[in-house]
Amino acid sequence: MISQSMYALGANRSCIRELFEYGLKQAQIVGKENVFDFSLGNPSIPAPDTVQEAFQSLSAQEDSLAVHGYTPAAGCPDARIAAANDLTARFGVPIRPENLFFTCGAAPALISVVRALAVEDAEILAIAPFFPEYRPFVEQNGAKFTVVPADTDTFQIPVAGVEKKLTPHTQGIIVNSPNNPSGVVYSRENLAALAELLTRKSQEYGHPIYILADEPYRELVYDGLEVPFIPAVYPNTVVCYSYSKSLSLPGERIGYVCVPDCAADSEELFAAVAGAARVLGHVCAPSLQQQVAARCAEIRPNLEAYDRNRRTLYDALTAYGYACVKPNGAFYLFVRAPGGDAQAFSDRAKKENLLLVPGGDFGCPEFFRASTCVSHDMILRSLPVFQRLIAEY
Amino acid sequence: MISQSMYALGANRSCIRELFEYGLKQAQIVGKENVFDFSLGNPSIPAPDTVQEAFQSLSAQEDSLAVHGYTPAAGCPDARIAAANDLTARFGVPIRPENLFFTCGAAPALISVVRALAVEDAEILAIAPFFPEYRPFVEQNGAKFTVVPADTDTFQIPVAGVEKKLTPHTQGIIVNSPNNPSGVVYSRENLAALAELLTRKSQEYGHPIYILADEPYRELVYDGLEVPFIPAVYPNTVVCYSYSKSLSLPGERIGYVCVPDCAADSEELFAAVAGAARVLGHVCAPSLQQQVAARCAEIRPNLEAYDRNRRTLYDALTAYGYACVKPNGAFYLFVRAPGGDAQAFSDRAKKENLLLVPGGDFGCPEFFRASTCVSHDMILRSLPVFQRLIAEY
Repeated sequence: MISQSMYALGANRSCIRELFEYGLKQAQIVGKENVFDFSLGNPSIPAPDTVQEAFQSLSAQEDSLAVHGYTPAAGCPDARIAAANDLTARFGVPIRPENLFFTCGAAPALISVVRALAVEDAEILAIAPFFPEYRPFVEQNGAKFTVVPADTDTFQIPVAGVEKKLTPHTQGIIVNSPNNPSGVVYSRENLAALAELLTRKSQEYGHPIYILADEPYRELVYDGLEVPFIPAVYPNTVVCYSYSKSLSLPGERIGYVCVPDCAADSEELFAAVAGAARVLGHVCAPSLQQQVAARCAEIRPNLEAYDRNRRTLYDALTAYGYACVKPNGAFYLFVRAPGGDAQAFSDRAKKENLLLVPGGDFGCPEFFRASTCVSHDMILRSLPVFQRLIAEY
Repeated sequence: MISQSMYALGANRSCIRELFEYGLKQAQIVGKENVFDFSLGNPSIPAPDTVQEAFQSLSAQEDSLAVHGYTPAAGCPDARIAAANDLTARFGVPIRPENLFFTCGAAPALISVVRALAVEDAEILAIAPFFPEYRPFVEQNGAKFTVVPADTDTFQIPVAGVEKKLTPHTQGIIVNSPNNPSGVVYSRENLAALAELLTRKSQEYGHPIYILADEPYRELVYDGLEVPFIPAVYPNTVVCYSYSKSLSLPGERIGYVCVPDCAADSEELFAAVAGAARVLGHVCAPSLQQQVAARCAEIRPNLEAYDRNRRTLYDALTAYGYACVKPNGAFYLFVRAPGGDAQAFSDRAKKENLLLVPGGDFGCPEFFRASTCVSHDMILRSLPVFQRLIAEY
């Protein structure tokens, strides 16, 4: 008499988590320096000084109730104002504090939007490769989950492929750029083509198809590349953000939903997001973390370490003969597995204590993901193993 | 094409929140000292020194990633160990760290258990008076919500009333003691009678009926009263806890679900709670707050101020002729409205800038709730208004 779907979701460990724990165990046997763990997408650079100082000075404040008390459900005014001002200044789309709803990170942000859109027979699309949690997030919150197969040559959005999956029940499409796992940033042209399609089909179906822009990696981008702000390209966009990666605060659960005024029915949608958050158990985002976000809205991460890792690993792997689209963002490489079966290749690599995530759950079973939010030394030590492995194929 | 149930939940403000905001507005017109706001259940005493010191010393730690990084989904080992040890030492029911799943407060804790039990046609009972959010928490997470009418003479659990509402589909009953809004602590005898009933009906139906013990007020109890630990009385109990009230950290969103080994199918249920949390958007409870909880598991609040408020307000109101069961816990008085219609009485009081929550949403429309987590001065200033009002009836 226990929900079997919930049991299955709780009992079946994620492959990523299992690899990570295998790595910890192996480190005790063969030594930490002989395990090459590329499994987790866990920031490896410390939080910026300003962020750490904000935690310290807020914690030292006299008025405990002001620091640790309830905030309004949508967030404390300071955090909403600071984030709205920062977005408006950077992206040229006017964002008001009232457009922002602070959440315990990007996961409940995204799920709140899914539930807000989960009318009868609702369908939500995701584009492969995609973060595997999207599937349970959508399927267990009232909508059908539909996957658009990847364009494995570029990992840009396959717009013709999206068109094939659209139906009159499509309520939204999740767009994650910079992308986990590919590290690719969708180009403005690519997004404009998607926008053209969605505009046309929204008219045809007689209701808006929303983009759910999942943007935890928005600030993690290299080579001076621009990450287009999607509401500027397609107005019916809801942005889900997290400070986890940009401020290296993944455990602190602070992010927001932004429903801009330009989105169709934005007030009604915002209210529905608030209602959905409520039945997910949201009371407010952690108060201290909100106040840190209020003080640090304009802080950007120092990406030097991630960038060096990205270049070192990309250059070495492609030199050895691995095929990989060069990532411009996030902290992952998504590499075609020699032999074409990423599960088999990952299993083989595991025997060398090289831990790579096979791409099946991401919707691309021929690719593996290697995180570059690791130590540079570990990358250097791992290179001979990568070289040896491809020589076997 | 937006979910109308989510919209309604987001657009319809809670009556408590509206009263509170009305009070803020009136304060600007008539002066803060002339508004008597008894609406919110918001801790009014600062966090204990040890708690504030824990925030400060953790925030000052060198290793930012250790403080702010992801923890395992169920919580960081230190927090689970500290809470398990504290529970075991106090209540004599062995609790292991593996029985605890840390959450962003009591709301997602309770909802995770509801979803874990939400098999087809599942029913969850609540006993009036009850926290109004229970209704959307249950109804929007896959189960039918059934209310057991209150025993308004004592506000103890009306065991015969519970029996009338049990069906073969009953999966659980929410038990909230000390109770919001009545402030009553259910006695051991009362809980034993409920346990006897649930044991008998579980056997009859062939499946366990769980108690969902919602215990954010567990440490807020007066007159040296004992709050029975429900798993010691009825093994099939899952405890949902929050540090919001006990450590005066309501905005910080830190609590846990405890599935003790003595509960039926405890391992399966724990996994289902973890799976449910996942699809509610749980990644981990805020990392810094978990570490504070780890250091402060044995800290109890100083209740002097709440206790003085409780006695002052209870003594005065009963002296004026109001009827009220004396609360032994939490920080509320639940008072029979003169005239028998709490909505009408609350509206009348509002004209005097005395803000009281009518009990309709709590399942008791003849009673109003007055929070005692307020300043003692405000209580003293409000007393003539209470006295004047009852004289009208």
